[in-house]
Amino acid sequence: MDELRQAWTQFVEHHKETALLSSIQSLLTWDERTGMPVKAADYRAEQVAYLAGKIHERRTAPCVGEWLEILAEGLKSADPHGDQAASVRETKRQFDKQSKLPQRLVEELTRAEVLGQQAWVKARQEDDYSAFQPYLETNLKLRREQASAIGYEASPYDVLLDDYEPGENSENLKQVLRGLREALVPLIAELGEAKDQPVDQFLRQTYPVERQEQFGIHVATRLGFDFSRGRLDITDHPFCTEIGPHDHRILTRYNPKDFSQAFYGILHEAGHGIYDQGLRPDQYGLPSGAPISLGIHESQSRLWENMVGRSLAFWEFFHPVAQEHFPDQLGQCSPKQMYDGVNVVRPSLIRVEADEATYNLHIAIRFDLEKALIEGELPSPDLPAAWNQRYRDDLGIEPPGDGMGVLQDVHWSAALFGYFPTYSLGNLYAAHWMQCARQDLGDLDQQFRQGEFLPLKDWLAQNIYQHGQCFSARQLLERIAGQPLSHEPLLNYLSQKLRPIYGLSSS
Amino acid sequence: MDELRQAWTQFVEHHKETALLSSIQSLLTWDERTGMPVKAADYRAEQVAYLAGKIHERRTAPCVGEWLEILAEGLKSADPHGDQAASVRETKRQFDKQSKLPQRLVEELTRAEVLGQQAWVKARQEDDYSAFQPYLETNLKLRREQASAIGYEASPYDVLLDDYEPGENSENLKQVLRGLREALVPLIAELGEAKDQPVDQFLRQTYPVERQEQFGIHVATRLGFDFSRGRLDITDHPFCTEIGPHDHRILTRYNPKDFSQAFYGILHEAGHGIYDQGLRPDQYGLPSGAPISLGIHESQSRLWENMVGRSLAFWEFFHPVAQEHFPDQLGQCSPKQMYDGVNVVRPSLIRVEADEATYNLHIAIRFDLEKALIEGELPSPDLPAAWNQRYRDDLGIEPPGDGMGVLQDVHWSAALFGYFPTYSLGNLYAAHWMQCARQDLGDLDQQFRQGEFLPLKDWLAQNIYQHGQCFSARQLLERIAGQPLSHEPLLNYLSQKLRPIYGLSSS
Repeated sequence: MDELRQAWTQFVEHHKETALLSSIQSLLTWDERTGMPVKAADYRAEQVAYLAGKIHERRTAPCVGEWLEILAEGLKSADPHGDQAASVRETKRQFDKQSKLPQRLVEELTRAEVLGQQAWVKARQEDDYSAFQPYLETNLKLRREQASAIGYEASPYDVLLDDYEPGENSENLKQVLRGLREALVPLIAELGEAKDQPVDQFLRQTYPVERQEQFGIHVATRLGFDFSRGRLDITDHPFCTEIGPHDHRILTRYNPKDFSQAFYGILHEAGHGIYDQGLRPDQYGLPSGAPISLGIHESQSRLWENMVGRSLAFWEFFHPVAQEHFPDQLGQCSPKQMYDGVNVVRPSLIRVEADEATYNLHIAIRFDLEKALIEGELPSPDLPAAWNQRYRDDLGIEPPGDGMGVLQDVHWSAALFGYFPTYSLGNLYAAHWMQCARQDLGDLDQQFRQGEFLPLKDWLAQNIYQHGQCFSARQLLERIAGQPLSHEPLLNYLSQKLRPIYGLSSS
Repeated sequence: MDELRQAWTQFVEHHKETALLSSIQSLLTWDERTGMPVKAADYRAEQVAYLAGKIHERRTAPCVGEWLEILAEGLKSADPHGDQAASVRETKRQFDKQSKLPQRLVEELTRAEVLGQQAWVKARQEDDYSAFQPYLETNLKLRREQASAIGYEASPYDVLLDDYEPGENSENLKQVLRGLREALVPLIAELGEAKDQPVDQFLRQTYPVERQEQFGIHVATRLGFDFSRGRLDITDHPFCTEIGPHDHRILTRYNPKDFSQAFYGILHEAGHGIYDQGLRPDQYGLPSGAPISLGIHESQSRLWENMVGRSLAFWEFFHPVAQEHFPDQLGQCSPKQMYDGVNVVRPSLIRVEADEATYNLHIAIRFDLEKALIEGELPSPDLPAAWNQRYRDDLGIEPPGDGMGVLQDVHWSAALFGYFPTYSLGNLYAAHWMQCARQDLGDLDQQFRQGEFLPLKDWLAQNIYQHGQCFSARQLLERIAGQPLSHEPLLNYLSQKLRPIYGLSSS
């Protein structure tokens, strides 16, 4: 028993110390993305690499393996969803995976990611997939090797998916995304042909950046993002980062000619931040105080951005404040017009600019293609043709070149396979959460209309945030919704919201 | 020989790695002072303390002692001002001092600094020296112990001074500061009684912060601060920090009702930054790539702030740009009026607000008093009376209470004795440098008038910056000016500038 207690104490201390280094590394990255002097880049890379090396050393240290052995044995009969058992289980999962990877493969992957991204930047600029294809092939080869080294049952893709969405499997995901796609394609087509097309031109007037920032902070605060534990800054590639248990920073980019870009960007990142701020600070550095998965994280950004921030009730409450900030731009605009404008559905080529409905088709396409690539079903030279075919079939449009098509995203060049589906998982989970929250909390819209967003935030904290990784994503859903992942809540939500906006019966 | 080469390689590697950690620590501090969320403070303290511990461990590691022994022996006949010999000498100096300090004393000092500062904040607010006196007594006792442990010849004060101004001694400093004081006291009195009193009210109109920043950046760039290797931010307590060999950040605070506060603050910190940017990046992390002393560092900030930035030639060049930025405030103001306004001499109680002439009297007072305190000549209960007496004698004014008197500075509460004189050393050295630069470069004023500041910057880089710590401050002065430290260049500079402004003969 003393051995167990001692191992636990050392395990916790070790991980809290690693968390100190990780959080410092996050600050280095935050600073790099917010205004570091240009010529500081080389030395910054050295600083980051040095800490990354130290962190990796600590995570894979033999002592961790020894503690894990003692702890896994000693906690056999403990509650599997308790803090201790969960932290040991999740750490062991990562540690075991890591120890199965040959050092050579880790190094080759690191190298391939860098070379792949460099080649991709150039290929995208020049619309030239063929220049990038050999690098993609290398990335695929190395990831297949990784999957073999770690081992899998059904598909090598499952091993990769597991890095981002632990416990998920690609067969299940395929079913859910297929169900979603089969219903979304006709819905989107029907919206496109509807007679009542909503108007959104007014969102693309001049919106002074300073006002955009003030309004964004106002709304994010009201939704529950705590600025005494966070801040908002400007960057090229928006993200949310954690620099300590009480330091969560959101970053956005402003377009002075488009209201919705930064506004929904802020809400999206604030949603990520609200999740992180809801984790238990005393568990910081341990799996019991860490977010579950990318999909669950994305479910929070999407929930606040779309399901709250693009609701009619939301605009009924925030409409007067928006008009105060933008009297010339929105003075004549009703809450219903705002609502319609921010919910326009329009098939487009670029994923990151897609609306709430078509976004999932972009993801379904990428998921099917990357799964086929990894499994060897789709030879990499055939990728652009397969890509363009799917864009014609699903969205009715075709890229003018590979830059706006198959080369638009960085992920594959950085050997990130299995990452894309977490974006749609975010939408799917968010729809589940909203369905359950409405059952538990009553008329949410009535609450939003009165500016009451804290009951929803508290419900999410209670049901999701505070558990850290004590439950897997699937377990959590089972626990909250009493059912497995399904495309139906998301489809119902989209259909019931969008059809009336386009003047269609809400069937 | 192989042993020597190996020791050198390991020595360099070790110090470069320590420099990575130090530079990361600087970023943590910079971020803390520029906008870290308020509730992040506790965890930030943990992050900083963790790195500080690692850095201290590395600096005092036994392997460093072993390398130093081999290197000192092996480099006996090397050029003492070469990079290797200098880096070994300076590292050994620090290492030997460190190893003479008992761990108990180090810990007691750390504790006393924290407690002393806490007590000081309260005592200053309440104008109550007696509440602070016991803490000061503890700080003095511990610093005397430190001096005994390290050993000294003439005065324990010399040991403390050596931490900030290596190679300087208090007897020499006493002579120089006394000479300066004896000439400055009557000069300042004479200026105060002169009939032609220059006017500076126009500097205290409303100056929009954004314009102040733009103008500050414009001027700092022209003087030679490289913004591709640095940036300017807002903080409460202005400073300049180094986050890497190509990352130097200056911080200032704006007063919208006072032009000169932030403007000269920026020039001051840019002066520090210009020095740091002029060190050799390939020597980063070694004494050969580090600044010599606080006094030499301050000589750079003072030189650019005062001797350049408060010259008539400077305003003859920048006057039109200043008028562009502040047409309403400075539209009617001539270069001569600017020059007169920024050179007003006015005895005042607060050191950090003092003008270029009276500033040195504030320092001479502190130096005499802290030396007497450390040497036991002045019992700490008698300090306020001694302070007030000196302010009456030297500046003809008296503090209304201890908060604006003896309690105004943080230094003594943090057990920093020997730090104050480096401020005046900055002025003294700067005057020497300007005298020599004028001899070497010809008519500097003519150059300034044409906006040519780079010849001076290059001269400083050539003569001072690039040598790192290869020469001590005294050696450098001997090398450049061919004479020891003297109060005369500073006195001549002040007298020749200020007397004509006040309509007095320039005798």
